[in-house]
Amino acid sequence: MEIDMDKKIRDLTAYLTANAERGRMVGTLALRLQPDKEIIAHVLDLLRNILFPAHFGRKQTVSDFAVQYEYGSQIEEIYTTLADQISLALLHHPDYCDTPKAVRKARGREICARFLDRLPEIQDYLKTDIQAAFDGDPAAQDKDEIIFSYPGFYAIMVSRLAHALFVLDVPLIPRIMTEHAHVTTGIDIHPGAVIGRYFFIDHGTGVVIGETTVIGERVKVYQGVTLGGLSTRAGQGLRGAKRHPTIENDVTIYSNASVLGGETVIGEGCVIGGSCFITRSISPHMRVSVQSPELQLKPDQQALNDHTDYWVYEI
Amino acid sequence: MEIDMDKKIRDLTAYLTANAERGRMVGTLALRLQPDKEIIAHVLDLLRNILFPAHFGRKQTVSDFAVQYEYGSQIEEIYTTLADQISLALLHHPDYCDTPKAVRKARGREICARFLDRLPEIQDYLKTDIQAAFDGDPAAQDKDEIIFSYPGFYAIMVSRLAHALFVLDVPLIPRIMTEHAHVTTGIDIHPGAVIGRYFFIDHGTGVVIGETTVIGERVKVYQGVTLGGLSTRAGQGLRGAKRHPTIENDVTIYSNASVLGGETVIGEGCVIGGSCFITRSISPHMRVSVQSPELQLKPDQQALNDHTDYWVYEI
Amino acid sequence: MEIDMDKKIRDLTAYLTANAERGRMVGTLALRLQPDKEIIAHVLDLLRNILFPAHFGRKQTVSDFAVQYEYGSQIEEIYTTLADQISLALLHHPDYCDTPKAVRKARGREICARFLDRLPEIQDYLKTDIQAAFDGDPAAQDKDEIIFSYPGFYAIMVSRLAHALFVLDVPLIPRIMTEHAHVTTGIDIHPGAVIGRYFFIDHGTGVVIGETTVIGERVKVYQGVTLGGLSTRAGQGLRGAKRHPTIENDVTIYSNASVLGGETVIGEGCVIGGSCFITRSISPHMRVSVQSPELQLKPDQQALNDHTDYWVYEI
Repeated sequence: MEIDMDKKIRDLTAYLTANAERGRMVGTLALRLQPDKEIIAHVLDLLRNILFPAHFGRKQTVSDFAVQYEYGSQIEEIYTTLADQISLALLHHPDYCDTPKAVRKARGREICARFLDRLPEIQDYLKTDIQAAFDGDPAAQDKDEIIFSYPGFYAIMVSRLAHALFVLDVPLIPRIMTEHAHVTTGIDIHPGAVIGRYFFIDHGTGVVIGETTVIGERVKVYQGVTLGGLSTRAGQGLRGAKRHPTIENDVTIYSNASVLGGETVIGEGCVIGGSCFITRSISPHMRVSVQSPELQLKPDQQALNDHTDYWVYEI
Repeated sequence: MEIDMDKKIRDLTAYLTANAERGRMVGTLALRLQPDKEIIAHVLDLLRNILFPAHFGRKQTVSDFAVQYEYGSQIEEIYTTLADQISLALLHHPDYCDTPKAVRKARGREICARFLDRLPEIQDYLKTDIQAAFDGDPAAQDKDEIIFSYPGFYAIMVSRLAHALFVLDVPLIPRIMTEHAHVTTGIDIHPGAVIGRYFFIDHGTGVVIGETTVIGERVKVYQGVTLGGLSTRAGQGLRGAKRHPTIENDVTIYSNASVLGGETVIGEGCVIGGSCFITRSISPHMRVSVQSPELQLKPDQQALNDHTDYWVYEI
Repeated sequence: MEIDMDKKIRDLTAYLTANAERGRMVGTLALRLQPDKEIIAHVLDLLRNILFPAHFGRKQTVSDFAVQYEYGSQIEEIYTTLADQISLALLHHPDYCDTPKAVRKARGREICARFLDRLPEIQDYLKTDIQAAFDGDPAAQDKDEIIFSYPGFYAIMVSRLAHALFVLDVPLIPRIMTEHAHVTTGIDIHPGAVIGRYFFIDHGTGVVIGETTVIGERVKVYQGVTLGGLSTRAGQGLRGAKRHPTIENDVTIYSNASVLGGETVIGEGCVIGGSCFITRSISPHMRVSVQSPELQLKPDQQALNDHTDYWVYEI
């Protein structure tokens, strides 16, 4: 069979181009002016370098004297790069999409400067998160190991940085940051979530924390925990409403539990058992479990006879 | 202690070589002729560029006029590269493993041309998926954000492309594609799964959709949902059998629920609560939950007295 | 608004530097002497090459004769590179942190040589894991596909290699290895876990296996399964204690189930249903489920009337 690839390419090009012109669904070319995911990831690396200079950054520098120059040059790079990306992101902000480039540039620098002012406070919060991981995980050899390699700590760090940009009303970039952490760690924290001190996510793969979640102090969640919204098929009508739960101080939530809904409050000191599915409020100091009487124990005759065959699960 | 590394390396080499020769378990050298994971990932990038040309692709091109040349050159690159990889994959197809290279090359081009013919239809399906995500997620700022950064949408896009190659009976490549999406997003959709329009996976980490799953239209699943098979220890006897469930139209499945088995049908309009474990069919328009009476609430005396000590979970 | 960035950078630098000097929480510069994550990842690639030489490694070499030179050169590279990284890691070992560099270097080479001695045994174990995946997954086309692309197999391979270094008392590197696998696959196996032959993790995203877990032979776990510890807020007091469960031979654990606690034993031949949350021992040959009577079925009037509105989940 001879294939006329030339014609095929022409036809496909014509079809796809027509589709692209048929409107916003496949977008407009101007949309290519976006913040750049790789540059944002690089900015996150730089931010981590200056927040934890002993653990990350340029390895060749070991003198204590030189460290302040290292800080300076990295902060300067963050400032210029991030201000530039913010001014691009403002093209997607209703108040700035039609303003001249110079206005967006100035606004980008202003927002970036205010973001940098928040870094000391963010560093102080992250110290409490490290302490919580150290107290909460007997497998942690020391705090350095947490800073170096705990995915939960990385995701919290990124979410605290992204949240600072979110409250400064920066479009797209906060979500690009948390999505970078999501891809890296499997932990999906929306930059809108408000999270108290001493927060610890253990292991973390599959954790989801929604946009309007509010989390108190000394809260601990395990892998697979969802703090989410109830399902809707008319989502855009609910924008801005509180759709995700409130978790009060000193709550522990075990693996794969889901807590849903904007009016759901998990009271202070509660312990939520693994795999619970909770859509209403729980009073303080309760333990919640689906485990106790429901645990069905049946001798498995088939398993006794035959380990290699199909194991049917009776219901 | 002096270590004779020279001898150690010689001994280890001899042992491992002997092992390699002892048969298929550690493979034969000819197996190195495989499709290349990195090239397949690059082809996925190119496919995304032409399906969503306003959002991905070469940034320097901004003129509307030039876009058709961009399409053309990228489609041509997809055609040559993918046809080449398919002809390599055919070495693992029972009908083609012993045919001359020229036959496999021609067949590779033919399959690739038929795959390209499917792209407009795939693009149309993806538009419905974007709409479903926009309607289903109040946190979505606009459809562009979904295209740019929603991992669930990326996984669905890859699975629709991989499925088109799967039905054309291409070995290995469809699975390499979906495994690439799995590593990137934590969402594991087998290329064999048949998925209707308006499909929405929210967040998505931990989602598993098995090979013989059939999914209707307007279905919504959350992170951690498994549409899987019952366990077996004699797996190869079941190849080709329907082992995974059927999900009818307008079903919502909450986080971490599992629906298992080839004869299991979740009827139209059902809502499956989080953490449910379902191995039999559910009639249409039911809500399923393990939550209501089983939720155990007990005041936690220990927690009232002491927040910092070991919290035992009574059962 | 004019921003005095120069002053801002100076102030921020001063603040962050002071913070860094205020003690261990943000670390000391000497900590930069760490094993390198990228080098460790490269060593893992080399180890995979020599364990599965037919599937991974330098593609240009196809002659059977040349393969032994390939082995030799790669084993030599593993030896030099890994011995070097181990001697760096020993800086974090209480017995070696204050010894001269030459002592650590010699000890690094010695440990590395003993690690290489373990490779044939590890390869034998991995062969059983491949067989278990082949028997347990009807979707597996052949064993090559498992070796090439199954994330569960990759995570098991890395954990068996990391465990060998863990029992040789190497700091940091075992955890860096398993964390690399965690980022790649979403499967988090602590290098301390003891795992028997024929181990199969299907799909795997979200799996967590804790430090003191003991797993028998022919065990199969699905995505989202946690073999973990009970929560504690005074973690460091429990270091070294057995905090994670024991899973006996021929156990199957379905998706998103959690088994917690150091005294918890899941007896031989048990089947643990999806989403179970288990904190006490289960006798051999039992099936455990939260599914049967608790499954709540209610006709969903609202869903019958209106598919597009908010679906409230009654509890």
